[in-house]
Amino acid sequence: MRKVYLSNTPREEALAKFLAGVEIPRRLEKIAVTGALQRVTGKAVFASCSMPSYHAAAMDGIAVLAEKTFGASDQNPFCLKPEEDYHNVNTGDPLPSGFDAVIMVENIQQLEDGKIEILAPATPWQHVRPVGEDVVTGELIVPALHRLAAPDLGALLAGGIGEIEVLAKPKAAIIPSGSEVIAPSAERKRGNVPDFNSTVIASFLRQWGAEAEIMPIVPDDQGKIRSAIEKALEIFDLVIVNAGSSAGEKDYTCMVIEELGEVFIHGVATRPGKPTILGQIKDKPIIGLPGYPVSAYLSLEWFALPLLCRHFGQPLPERNRLEVTLGRRVVSEIGSEEFVRMTVGYVNGHFIANPLTRGAGVTMSLVRADGLLIIPANSLGFEQDETVEIELNKPEIALRHNLLAAGSHDLIIDLLATTLKERDPQMNLSSAHLGSMGGIAAVGSGRAHLAGVHLFDPETGVYNVPYIKKYLPGGGVHLMNLVYRMQGWIVPPGNPDKVENIKQLADQKFSFINRQKGAGTRVLFDHLLEKAGLTPDQIYGYQREEHTHLNVAAAISAGTARVGLGILPAAKAFGLDFVPLVEERYDLLMSESFFNSPEAKTLLSIITDPAFQKEVEAMGGYSMRDAGKIIEC
Amino acid sequence: MRKVYLSNTPREEALAKFLAGVEIPRRLEKIAVTGALQRVTGKAVFASCSMPSYHAAAMDGIAVLAEKTFGASDQNPFCLKPEEDYHNVNTGDPLPSGFDAVIMVENIQQLEDGKIEILAPATPWQHVRPVGEDVVTGELIVPALHRLAAPDLGALLAGGIGEIEVLAKPKAAIIPSGSEVIAPSAERKRGNVPDFNSTVIASFLRQWGAEAEIMPIVPDDQGKIRSAIEKALEIFDLVIVNAGSSAGEKDYTCMVIEELGEVFIHGVATRPGKPTILGQIKDKPIIGLPGYPVSAYLSLEWFALPLLCRHFGQPLPERNRLEVTLGRRVVSEIGSEEFVRMTVGYVNGHFIANPLTRGAGVTMSLVRADGLLIIPANSLGFEQDETVEIELNKPEIALRHNLLAAGSHDLIIDLLATTLKERDPQMNLSSAHLGSMGGIAAVGSGRAHLAGVHLFDPETGVYNVPYIKKYLPGGGVHLMNLVYRMQGWIVPPGNPDKVENIKQLADQKFSFINRQKGAGTRVLFDHLLEKAGLTPDQIYGYQREEHTHLNVAAAISAGTARVGLGILPAAKAFGLDFVPLVEERYDLLMSESFFNSPEAKTLLSIITDPAFQKEVEAMGGYSMRDAGKIIEC
Repeated sequence: MRKVYLSNTPREEALAKFLAGVEIPRRLEKIAVTGALQRVTGKAVFASCSMPSYHAAAMDGIAVLAEKTFGASDQNPFCLKPEEDYHNVNTGDPLPSGFDAVIMVENIQQLEDGKIEILAPATPWQHVRPVGEDVVTGELIVPALHRLAAPDLGALLAGGIGEIEVLAKPKAAIIPSGSEVIAPSAERKRGNVPDFNSTVIASFLRQWGAEAEIMPIVPDDQGKIRSAIEKALEIFDLVIVNAGSSAGEKDYTCMVIEELGEVFIHGVATRPGKPTILGQIKDKPIIGLPGYPVSAYLSLEWFALPLLCRHFGQPLPERNRLEVTLGRRVVSEIGSEEFVRMTVGYVNGHFIANPLTRGAGVTMSLVRADGLLIIPANSLGFEQDETVEIELNKPEIALRHNLLAAGSHDLIIDLLATTLKERDPQMNLSSAHLGSMGGIAAVGSGRAHLAGVHLFDPETGVYNVPYIKKYLPGGGVHLMNLVYRMQGWIVPPGNPDKVENIKQLADQKFSFINRQKGAGTRVLFDHLLEKAGLTPDQIYGYQREEHTHLNVAAAISAGTARVGLGILPAAKAFGLDFVPLVEERYDLLMSESFFNSPEAKTLLSIITDPAFQKEVEAMGGYSMRDAGKIIEC
Repeated sequence: MRKVYLSNTPREEALAKFLAGVEIPRRLEKIAVTGALQRVTGKAVFASCSMPSYHAAAMDGIAVLAEKTFGASDQNPFCLKPEEDYHNVNTGDPLPSGFDAVIMVENIQQLEDGKIEILAPATPWQHVRPVGEDVVTGELIVPALHRLAAPDLGALLAGGIGEIEVLAKPKAAIIPSGSEVIAPSAERKRGNVPDFNSTVIASFLRQWGAEAEIMPIVPDDQGKIRSAIEKALEIFDLVIVNAGSSAGEKDYTCMVIEELGEVFIHGVATRPGKPTILGQIKDKPIIGLPGYPVSAYLSLEWFALPLLCRHFGQPLPERNRLEVTLGRRVVSEIGSEEFVRMTVGYVNGHFIANPLTRGAGVTMSLVRADGLLIIPANSLGFEQDETVEIELNKPEIALRHNLLAAGSHDLIIDLLATTLKERDPQMNLSSAHLGSMGGIAAVGSGRAHLAGVHLFDPETGVYNVPYIKKYLPGGGVHLMNLVYRMQGWIVPPGNPDKVENIKQLADQKFSFINRQKGAGTRVLFDHLLEKAGLTPDQIYGYQREEHTHLNVAAAISAGTARVGLGILPAAKAFGLDFVPLVEERYDLLMSESFFNSPEAKTLLSIITDPAFQKEVEAMGGYSMRDAGKIIEC
């Protein structure tokens, strides 16, 4: 019988147990100061010589003996003879022996024969940089456990330190496990999972100051996992096994750690990240990370980062926080802390945050995230428009330039986003895939700058305008055409079912894949259904929803659906066939304030740029004949 | 005739001119994704395959065809046969052909013969992870000019991208110049300056994403500087010449740039950093940095960092800001922006900031700085206790653990600081060298946690207590002994002048070096003077002040003074002789709240640790016989 349940230990408690149970020993290594940037000192370092090592002129001018200048004034100018009374000096020159002050070049008058006139006395040691002003022999330059910044290296070299004892980098082994796992570069067959997690884990560990090595992939075999761990323990200070950390029938990591050492924690009260194992073997820390990427990376940060920070004597890095208004409701279950990846835009002076997909398997949610909303274990979540604090992945200043595009998804929005960034790298176009209806609501309520909409109104035969009039009767928005695009049936190559019209879908029960409620394409499909006198229950798969054209095409390509409604480039991306059905108008809805902003001007300049239009039309199924045209509404 | 004056261009204006006049061209290079952490994309990257590439079980359990489970309930359990009705699946397994849903292992009952019972129906596609849920073919993974974080690498590999085009690192040449400049590792003779600036400059540039190469040192020779620059321009994208950037007779950098190209700016309205040159040669940016380290590093950040950020399409990194109370007055002159390095401590719930030395040559002021106070060009500075905003070099959380030790300087304070950090790496002991009198004022007014004091009261013959009673009559402080230490005459090796008593200093006019007003050692010297019936004007050098024992010893070692009053370890650090004079008591004055804090307990545990005491006494001239003893006052 399989072990089915994991513990539900709060994250803080799990971390405390882990840190109490293990420690990475500190080893010192001696390296050149010139290459010690960001390394952490192993010992306090005291200066072995002084900088400057002699009294030096602190200004360009002349060196004098101050005593000899006492009494000089406008009424009683002194004349100084070279060599005898003064020496020319430049900043940094050693003060010649027998002289104790510098008069600035601005305050001297050149006379003939190299003589010089002064109108004021010098005070002893004026404009003289004393020995050791920068660093003095015996002075503490940096304490132990200090992370070396660039100026520290200068002070060390100035203080005569050429080599320095730093903490050796802890060695971390990453053991990828799973019979289905293959190298990321290997050819993928059905059932294979490329091991991209190890690269991410290694990259994080290197950023945190460790040396990380990715070990060979181990299949789901208890004996092989055991020997891989044992081998790694001989050399490494920290062992990370990715995945097999849950309690399924092929999850051996926990059993192996129990066999060889001690499991402190199996199961953390977080979502994602729950199936995490924390333990020790021969006093060395070992972490079993979940296989789902988001779970793995968050769990790594919760447990490996504090271990390394403690090792280096550094405080745990804190992310900046930001108060944001929630653009959508975010629900959560009691009992687990939940970590929701959020996008943030700056709309009308407010930071508006929207949740990204919650799936633990969606790496892209981390790629797109501007911040993280942490919902405590005792919370049911937050309502729309509620103010919450999020942890930022990016500097706040960068988020102030984030444009928020809600509404329908089109590949052109992605193209627009990357072109915008090339034109003005400060700017970001973040997309929330809310569908056309969601986009109208978001722009209307000030929760987004703009939204792509393509909503056909059967009564008038007109796109978008009737919907905007109905849902935003107060106006205050502008509508601009972006593109016309061809919608059609996406079908397997060669269109084996000879799909031509919607009736066939009902009659022949082809497995259909639908779009989510509120999407313009869903509205179009419902309209086609109605026009044909059909009802949803006659369409097999009507309930199955995807959020983008590409995901619809992916399902057809994988053979789990036979037909979907979507755009030509999505079909082309997967080498599928496409049966054109209707050309629709895809517009951008903009709030009044955004419409008048410089950012909107930049956007317009891209949309109307012939080079951009050519690129779009080359994707197939697009016409930009009216791009940038304002539509009355 | 030398050119004496530089322009006084505001920093913002100088930067705008520089950025308008030069640009580093973007070149692409193709590298493996596995090694692309922190690199910046040259082009938008779209997924070339989907992850997962098949429909997969999202849970451990059984795969079923949902249709076949419709109608199952508690009252009407369904019995499923292996192979025919279900397949065992683990999370991530491909969904077997002909099945479209997963039932979790928790919701099934094992019967005999491998049969399984279910009590509820499955909905189609439940617990199935669809093709492309993570990354879907054709999807935009990262736009152009995106700095790659660890999870991005995962998404790229998941999307089938093994190699990526990133911006090649711009190549920067650093040309150290100056006839006095030698390699940092070379033996130093009088007049030599080791080139530690180049290491710092190169380290900063590397942190900012450039490749940096340090070129051979060039003497102050216009022709040689010209050919070094010309040679560098053949290969490098950015040339930095350090120093010779001012207008002295050996400052050739500006002339050479004018000869070969164009000088945009010579002189920036900042202090430090004024003698900066910004120009172009053949459209390549060239920067002439000042020789003083603090000036050079700040100027580099003002001008090279924005150039590189723009190149990479990244926002300029912003430092966090913090409101602090000024522990001391900070004056400034009108006309230049001033950059004052500050230490920060967290005293009684307030961040208290004190200025470090203003000298542009003091690298240690950057090493010690917790933040930077920027005084605008039109400001005369700020008063003590005024609230100002500073830019932080360290995370605010780290500063919350900063203990502020004001008062007298002793080498043991440094030793205490580094021992404290080894015991508790979160803690920092920052020192402000205010002298004993300044320390009493600082602790008394809540501007410091503790202060080292050693003030002899001639009337009572008692150390410290009379002063504390006089200046802090309200009490609220505690006094704890740290050490007894020997004060004496620091003299050249062999004591050539046979210094024994203070009378000789007056009679024989030995060049004396004094300590600053308010220092306990100064109070002691004044007491000795008075006791001997002498006045300050009888002591040659009485006006010449240094702030630490080590700096006094450094001056004697350099031969610019013959005698000073100080402690034995300072003499030993420079191989000088020491004539013992008086053993004095060096106590720690602590505020009431600090005295009762856990941090004070840690401090006490160090002070009373026999290992620490042994280390201190081994330095010579110290006795820790009463260390940790509380003194009534």
